[in-house]
Amino acid sequence: MFIARVRGNVVTTQKVETMTGRKLLIVEPLRVDEKQKKMFGTEKCFVAVDSLGAGTDDLVLVTQGSSSRMTSQTEKSPVDCVVIGIVDTIFADQAEVYRKSGKAG
Amino acid sequence: MFIARVRGNVVTTQKVETMTGRKLLIVEPLRVDEKQKKMFGTEKCFVAVDSLGAGTDDLVLVTQGSSSRMTSQTEKSPVDCVVIGIVDTIFADQAEVYRKSGKAG
Amino acid sequence: MFIARVRGNVVTTQKVETMTGRKLLIVEPLRVDEKQKKMFGTEKCFVAVDSLGAGTDDLVLVTQGSSSRMTSQTEKSPVDCVVIGIVDTIFADQAEVYRKSGKAG
Amino acid sequence: MFIARVRGNVVTTQKVETMTGRKLLIVEPLRVDEKQKKMFGTEKCFVAVDSLGAGTDDLVLVTQGSSSRMTSQTEKSPVDCVVIGIVDTIFADQAEVYRKSGKAG
Amino acid sequence: MFIARVRGNVVTTQKVETMTGRKLLIVEPLRVDEKQKKMFGTEKCFVAVDSLGAGTDDLVLVTQGSSSRMTSQTEKSPVDCVVIGIVDTIFADQAEVYRKSGKAG
Repeated sequence: MFIARVRGNVVTTQKVETMTGRKLLIVEPLRVDEKQKKMFGTEKCFVAVDSLGAGTDDLVLVTQGSSSRMTSQTEKSPVDCVVIGIVDTIFADQAEVYRKSGKAG
Repeated sequence: MFIARVRGNVVTTQKVETMTGRKLLIVEPLRVDEKQKKMFGTEKCFVAVDSLGAGTDDLVLVTQGSSSRMTSQTEKSPVDCVVIGIVDTIFADQAEVYRKSGKAG
Repeated sequence: MFIARVRGNVVTTQKVETMTGRKLLIVEPLRVDEKQKKMFGTEKCFVAVDSLGAGTDDLVLVTQGSSSRMTSQTEKSPVDCVVIGIVDTIFADQAEVYRKSGKAG
Repeated sequence: MFIARVRGNVVTTQKVETMTGRKLLIVEPLRVDEKQKKMFGTEKCFVAVDSLGAGTDDLVLVTQGSSSRMTSQTEKSPVDCVVIGIVDTIFADQAEVYRKSGKAG
Repeated sequence: MFIARVRGNVVTTQKVETMTGRKLLIVEPLRVDEKQKKMFGTEKCFVAVDSLGAGTDDLVLVTQGSSSRMTSQTEKSPVDCVVIGIVDTIFADQAEVYRKSGKAG
């Protein structure tokens, strides 16, 4: 899996049938900046199915490949990228490098 | 999945049997340019099966890997890349970064 | 899938049993050069199973991953890369960027 | 598989059901530095499920893709990255390039 | 598949059960140097299961992903990288770019 930031969403009217009703997010994979103790973007751009209600700027946990069909929402769908969790906190290199705003310490 | 621009197509006469009649598009994955609020090309080059009738310069949603066999057109085919939607609009970083021409606002 | 140029072949005497008799090609993925209207190499190097009789310098269509087991030649084999077509013509950016020599226009 | 160093962990409260109770590690793939005879980081960042109790700075063996569902802990889960071993020693280029601290020679 | 050079091996005591007894090689993918007519390293680093007895500096053929479970040794294992052949000769760009030492011409 990888950690990504939600940047936006995609709308497609014409699509294969099984994709009807899927929410499609634009996500950017992130890395840990060891010196600055924070997450930073890779500028890569993926589209992931979301069934958890992630919002813009949320950090999410994303699964790729055949494993992305292992949720009740994506089973047997032509989907290769899915949000499986919304990130609350990330600890790395002996520091807290991310905490979701609105979450108590 | 990833967003790509249709650049052209490929013709193969000699091929494995199950590929007969497949429309094969040349697609280039795109990224979001945050400052210029638009999509830009990565110069990478994939070949994707299309059953939706996407045309040159259309932006499409592309699935890779085993999940690309999860459409009625590609089931059991030696296909690892398929168009699953034609993109109408993309919102990213609080802006509309793409709208298909001919689509009302 | 991706488009690749056949550069040569590999011979292995000692191998897992199911690979006996497989023809193994060295292939280099290609990209479209938009300005020069031709294909160019990426210098990457893959080994693909071929059952179509592709020759050196032919351009071929290559499938990766589990989908490469979806041909009669590769079924249940430990193969992750297979030639599924020999390319005749490639159109991109409103131009013909490749035509197999010996093919009439 | 690849060798990675454990850098930390991720906490997600809101997640798909089947991920409940999974321990999620931040891992950084490593390479062998031939001249300095040691492992060094690639700065890439993955999230892997761990059921072996790996600790921060441990070197672990990581499997990706559908194969990461081939453990009793991850079967049928939307997981594409899993720790399958904790590394004791690495030999490369005729030298020992890593030994887990606390392990006798 | 890709061609790789065997650089060493990894030892893991603590591991998932199904990995017991597996020989784990450190391998570096190679590319063809067209001008110098030889193979050269990419400095990338993978860990592959070997059941063929490959030795240090041997060139091997490596399969990735779900296809790496298609050998009798790796079936149903959490393995995503396996050696399927030991390379004798490589021909590329009209030249022999590699021959295993000890093999007659």
